[in-house]
Amino acid sequence: MPPRSRSQRQADVRAKLRDDVDLWVASADESGEAYLVPLSFHWDGAALTLATPRSSRTAVNLLRAGHARLALGPTRDVVIIEGDVAELPTGTDPELEAAFAAAAGFEPPEGYVYLRITPREIQAWREADELAGRRLMRDGTWL
Amino acid sequence: MPPRSRSQRQADVRAKLRDDVDLWVASADESGEAYLVPLSFHWDGAALTLATPRSSRTAVNLLRAGHARLALGPTRDVVIIEGDVAELPTGTDPELEAAFAAAAGFEPPEGYVYLRITPREIQAWREADELAGRRLMRDGTWL
Repeated sequence: MPPRSRSQRQADVRAKLRDDVDLWVASADESGEAYLVPLSFHWDGAALTLATPRSSRTAVNLLRAGHARLALGPTRDVVIIEGDVAELPTGTDPELEAAFAAAAGFEPPEGYVYLRITPREIQAWREADELAGRRLMRDGTWL
Repeated sequence: MPPRSRSQRQADVRAKLRDDVDLWVASADESGEAYLVPLSFHWDGAALTLATPRSSRTAVNLLRAGHARLALGPTRDVVIIEGDVAELPTGTDPELEAAFAAAAGFEPPEGYVYLRITPREIQAWREADELAGRRLMRDGTWL
């Protein structure tokens, strides 16, 4: 198969954001110690919502840094998202919380925090021949 | 399906290390900026070998930190590996380099560095019911 066009990749990314349940979340503490876990997410067309224990390394790291690097897989059909992180206080947006629970398959219990990640940069590639042209969003705007 | 036993998980992890081609590599710089990419790897029974450009963020970050957090997927069949990172100077171990090229499907060109990651901690789980009992290796020893 030839490398996908930009518009095809953008359509594939939107489909993956809509249909996938989990993604990989990389984070780091202030000393430069990296961390990596899979988490469930919900995509509402503008931002991703995650929920994880407020005391978890991921929550602490992301709220400290204020931005995140996420990956949807598999490794030969990659979407990399960099975005800004903000806390969504519980109870602020019940509709979004219900949509998250439906997408993720659980309701965050006491002690969890909702994190909203708004993409600034999105890349997508499958094999090495797709590394060129992998940038699909820059500064929050689809290219 | 009931949660897998420890011995079943260890067998599954060894099979994944033997058969998978790529994994996720999280790293961070000294300011606490996280990074995440998929890379191909070779497992020789004792350590993982990666190859990536010496000037890449991943190589710089991993050689600075001296340890790595890796994940094999998919997100519902996770293996998380934490290990120590050492550079393998090119030409030191031609047999290992050939095995890497066969596993990864490419010979690292000029400017690449081989990184050897020796696991200290390994965890594996599929769904939430497998979070208990996910630790399979501690301090470099299979439990």
